[in-house]
Amino acid sequence: MDTNRKAVILLSGGVDSTTAMAFAKQEGYEIYGLSFRYGQLHTLELEAAQRVAKALGAKEHLMINIDLAKVGGSALTDQIDVPKARTEKEMAKDIPATYVPARNTIFLSLALAWAEVLGASDIFIGVNALDYSGYPDCRPEYIEAFERMANLATKTGVEGRTQIKIRTPLIHMTKSEIIQKGIELGVDYSMTHSCYDPSSDGTACGQCDSCLLRKKGFREAGIKDPIDYER
Amino acid sequence: MDTNRKAVILLSGGVDSTTAMAFAKQEGYEIYGLSFRYGQLHTLELEAAQRVAKALGAKEHLMINIDLAKVGGSALTDQIDVPKARTEKEMAKDIPATYVPARNTIFLSLALAWAEVLGASDIFIGVNALDYSGYPDCRPEYIEAFERMANLATKTGVEGRTQIKIRTPLIHMTKSEIIQKGIELGVDYSMTHSCYDPSSDGTACGQCDSCLLRKKGFREAGIKDPIDYER
Repeated sequence: MDTNRKAVILLSGGVDSTTAMAFAKQEGYEIYGLSFRYGQLHTLELEAAQRVAKALGAKEHLMINIDLAKVGGSALTDQIDVPKARTEKEMAKDIPATYVPARNTIFLSLALAWAEVLGASDIFIGVNALDYSGYPDCRPEYIEAFERMANLATKTGVEGRTQIKIRTPLIHMTKSEIIQKGIELGVDYSMTHSCYDPSSDGTACGQCDSCLLRKKGFREAGIKDPIDYER
Repeated sequence: MDTNRKAVILLSGGVDSTTAMAFAKQEGYEIYGLSFRYGQLHTLELEAAQRVAKALGAKEHLMINIDLAKVGGSALTDQIDVPKARTEKEMAKDIPATYVPARNTIFLSLALAWAEVLGASDIFIGVNALDYSGYPDCRPEYIEAFERMANLATKTGVEGRTQIKIRTPLIHMTKSEIIQKGIELGVDYSMTHSCYDPSSDGTACGQCDSCLLRKKGFREAGIKDPIDYER
């Protein structure tokens, strides 16, 4: 294991990105957390990201401001209602209103820029193709296409140096498998935040897609979720 | 020609992006200009972009703030000296200090997000593989890889609706051909700004790579450059 290798980890402060960071740490990378203040209505996740980066010993945690709200088109940045209490069948049926157009592409592009500056070889992203809630930019074929493009985009690629790898350790795992693995890796999930629509005191709603998937994951893993829910 | 079709055009306010916008307009698209305030030291280009968008009748001109300066690594956002008076051989030899890591990838990603929200089918970018000054993300193979990734990234791609096309009308043209074509299309280049290192009153330095390529382009086209230079 090369302990001098650096990895950039996209960190939202939720279960998946926190577990992805724990994977990178376990593999011996020097870890660099990257988060975005992108006009999301739930800035609580940024506080969670800061707690996680600190707890997992990130060498740096960079927070980039980018006003995606100007682009619009999502319940996470617009004043569209977050869908509640949907069944898994409903979640699987279509791409939800909380989809932010091209979000992973934008975030991975910025991670790529930072990776190039740092000389990092790997970018970790906690996407998940099973419990993926209908987002197109969580599929393996998308990630492969991004990696290919990334290696043509940068100096690194041109000069034939280290290729950039987009690492998706969770892509074929269920939410309960992710949680079990995270617990094995020592993750304290009380630091994390998942809810799309928390109450004013920060309590998770328990009814949005993100809360429902999280609750189901903990239930199936047979582990008590350390956070509180409104319902 | 379908006059209801929309195109997003990446607009820096320089010769190339202005000409790319003129191409989109000539093809009958409803045009949407997209510019970035990304920590560049030369904000004069944003004023040029506003003039150009207005003059070419853009339906909207969106300016997105994104603090790339935090990522660092470039003479355009850091306090690194802009190289001056380089020969073409020197420019061709390596990737210059003014290269912003993954810049086109970041800008195209945001254009992709906006295109999806607008229902636009085409994204125009004024990249150029001949006079490209050594940037890896101006090569045709990079653009093709981005387009492929983009169609996997979005709802549009998943639902099999209109595919997104990344349009590069200037990619195989020399700077003088671009200028000749722009003049044919009615572009007034006095609106544009190209210099990486203008004086405090906004006059172009005449010695940075961008000024040198522009001056050579006008000279070879046999057209008088309407802007002033310090030297």
